[in-house]
Amino acid sequence: MRSVRIGIVGLGNVGSGTLRLLRRNVDQIERKLGFPLEVSAVCSRSVHTKPGDAVALHPTAFRTTSWNELVTRPDVDIVAELVGGTTVAKDIIESALTAGKPVVTANKELLADHGAELWKQFRERGVTLGLEASVAGGIPVLTALRDGIAGDSIDAMIGILNGTSNYILTEVERTGAPFDQVLGEAQALGYAEADPSADIDGYDARSKLAILAALAFGERVRPEQIPVEGIRRIRTIDFAYAGRLGHTIRLLATARRESEGLRLAVRPALVDKSAILASVTGSYNALWVHGQGGDTFYYGRGAGPEPTGVAVVSDLMAAARTLRKPNGQPAPPFAHMSLDDHTPVSSGTEERQFFLRFRVRDRPGILAGLAAILAEQGVSIEAVLQEPHFDKSDLPFVVTLEPAKRHALEAALEVMRGLDFLVDDPLALPIEPTLTAS
Amino acid sequence: MRSVRIGIVGLGNVGSGTLRLLRRNVDQIERKLGFPLEVSAVCSRSVHTKPGDAVALHPTAFRTTSWNELVTRPDVDIVAELVGGTTVAKDIIESALTAGKPVVTANKELLADHGAELWKQFRERGVTLGLEASVAGGIPVLTALRDGIAGDSIDAMIGILNGTSNYILTEVERTGAPFDQVLGEAQALGYAEADPSADIDGYDARSKLAILAALAFGERVRPEQIPVEGIRRIRTIDFAYAGRLGHTIRLLATARRESEGLRLAVRPALVDKSAILASVTGSYNALWVHGQGGDTFYYGRGAGPEPTGVAVVSDLMAAARTLRKPNGQPAPPFAHMSLDDHTPVSSGTEERQFFLRFRVRDRPGILAGLAAILAEQGVSIEAVLQEPHFDKSDLPFVVTLEPAKRHALEAALEVMRGLDFLVDDPLALPIEPTLTAS
Repeated sequence: MRSVRIGIVGLGNVGSGTLRLLRRNVDQIERKLGFPLEVSAVCSRSVHTKPGDAVALHPTAFRTTSWNELVTRPDVDIVAELVGGTTVAKDIIESALTAGKPVVTANKELLADHGAELWKQFRERGVTLGLEASVAGGIPVLTALRDGIAGDSIDAMIGILNGTSNYILTEVERTGAPFDQVLGEAQALGYAEADPSADIDGYDARSKLAILAALAFGERVRPEQIPVEGIRRIRTIDFAYAGRLGHTIRLLATARRESEGLRLAVRPALVDKSAILASVTGSYNALWVHGQGGDTFYYGRGAGPEPTGVAVVSDLMAAARTLRKPNGQPAPPFAHMSLDDHTPVSSGTEERQFFLRFRVRDRPGILAGLAAILAEQGVSIEAVLQEPHFDKSDLPFVVTLEPAKRHALEAALEVMRGLDFLVDDPLALPIEPTLTAS
Repeated sequence: MRSVRIGIVGLGNVGSGTLRLLRRNVDQIERKLGFPLEVSAVCSRSVHTKPGDAVALHPTAFRTTSWNELVTRPDVDIVAELVGGTTVAKDIIESALTAGKPVVTANKELLADHGAELWKQFRERGVTLGLEASVAGGIPVLTALRDGIAGDSIDAMIGILNGTSNYILTEVERTGAPFDQVLGEAQALGYAEADPSADIDGYDARSKLAILAALAFGERVRPEQIPVEGIRRIRTIDFAYAGRLGHTIRLLATARRESEGLRLAVRPALVDKSAILASVTGSYNALWVHGQGGDTFYYGRGAGPEPTGVAVVSDLMAAARTLRKPNGQPAPPFAHMSLDDHTPVSSGTEERQFFLRFRVRDRPGILAGLAAILAEQGVSIEAVLQEPHFDKSDLPFVVTLEPAKRHALEAALEVMRGLDFLVDDPLALPIEPTLTAS
């Protein structure tokens, strides 16, 4: 089937991440859409002199330094504006609209300042404007607000929307190092910019909050009307005192609907350590939303080429689907889905550490006997734990295992079922590998 | 503008929650869509004898006990199938498709067994099939997988997909009460059914995992091919031992893409307490997704009339938008959005507890002086905290305040700025009210 053709303006981090994902996931994208996406043109100032590895992945793409040429080319069906800023970017988007072409953008400053007008213009023309990448890059919060919980009426939102600030705060807390030292390290690692003001003084989070307020409440709020306070004055000692109160400190972007209007702010605040927002560490972002359907919470990478690239590619796919198949939305995710049953991999071959809990009638030699049965199947014991317990006729203890295949463990459990000192069958629980690192 | 008309079949918990939300949010729904949604017909066995409060909210809706009559009525544009089960529900959905009408369903069993065929039939006809309510009711995970992170290629998912099991496990952990007692209490409270097997033996989570596998990987998996193990054998003592290992226990639905195929299972497992999944307590659900864009995590209510109703209403809105405006998707969330700036409520009127950190040159009477300044603005001190510190020329301490208006606090801070014993301006952080309760 004929491809939908993408023109990409701006080949920085986000543009490169987008180009890499469009190549790496090319087959899956076609399976989902039912037709391919093709990068037909790319534009940046240095595309001829320093095209970069990501551009080389799309050798047939036309290369130009003129965004205007790209936007007006007949072989560009959808335009991705990934240059940032509020001047040229606005011209690119408006030119694409004039040409009747859907636009995908990651531009939070522009949307915070001019989102409402742009949406109105695109809506009037019946053209798609995709903006998932503009807030909390890798987390599909805008899709959630626009579609997933569209039927809810939102009362409040609390976001951790700036990964750099969250990284610095949680590093100060974790290491006890002074703020300026952690900032310097973050700059050296590329997590913070040479001029860190947009991040650590809260302006970046404020732009995102203005976009979220428009999406959640349908109100246009100028970013400069939102009170903002950054994290420069937070010290190690503040975490110590907050900790004594059972709290930690996060830079929060908050929005609440009140009878007189919206109450909005970006400020560092104390957050209860048991609250799920307190579990957001490192450069991760998160958004907590309170509506009539209860709370929902969204968490993921807020920035970076791949996370933001996923948002751009997802928006490109939605725009392409609309261009190609105006009906049939919302569609199932895979256009090409076999009706044959997929046979899952046997669980016996999964290798895991295991937690084995036994209940035994105590007598000498039990552990040796169990260990021998496990050893016969090639399964090694890592540790034995036993809490004090006084009922010697029903004594629980736990053995943890070195990584083992489930079928080997099950063979051992089958043998153990015949042992007369067991009060009941051993309970075997896999130990799930650690899920997140930040 | 003419309304899009909804027919609802099934008036149990989910149907009633849907009817309540369609009434309560009627204005906002119209503002978002640009046209109203109207409930034109409702169907249940007892709609004439016991219509219920939710039906009474829609007095003009036609009432029938015949789903076939509802589906074929010319004043029904979209059908919501909320009866559950796999027999009549399938007939309702297929009849609606025959009539060319979009369908929204919350039916996980049916989708787990026949989702792939249904999607294919709806896709071929270009008709919308909405299914957000079928998995993790209040959390828009299907929208996220289908649209929000469509551009990603997912490697692994780990879900807590059954609220009843999670409630029981976390109550056993929290209270130390025996499993059977907690189950009995959950049944008395209506959190668990008289026959709890579908929940606590893992079958409910398994149906949801089959749907997620289809959406994330494009593979059709029969639920009965997924290994399942419930939570009946978990005891208080298991939490004690897991805790000694820094872990807790959750019923996990896991899916991993491996070279040989998908590895799927529903099983209780040990989860590191520092992992974000361990923070999911009570009847909440959650899904952790690992892809190339990094991890994303979704959390919220998995069941209940309002959370599941939000999913149904959101799907109805998407289907209505497609019927009415085939182009222009994805649309901005509010069709009617003013271009006037909304002036946020002044932050001065916000009432909060505050954390005030001072750095002082120590001398007698400091606290009394600060307290007097606060008292003059009507602000009361809740507690004073001071960690041992030996530099008397730069001594930090913290005062927490009873709830106070920000402008009163700021007036006090303004006065304090003139005090010669302060090393720098006091740092004032709001204490964010607790965010989630489960």
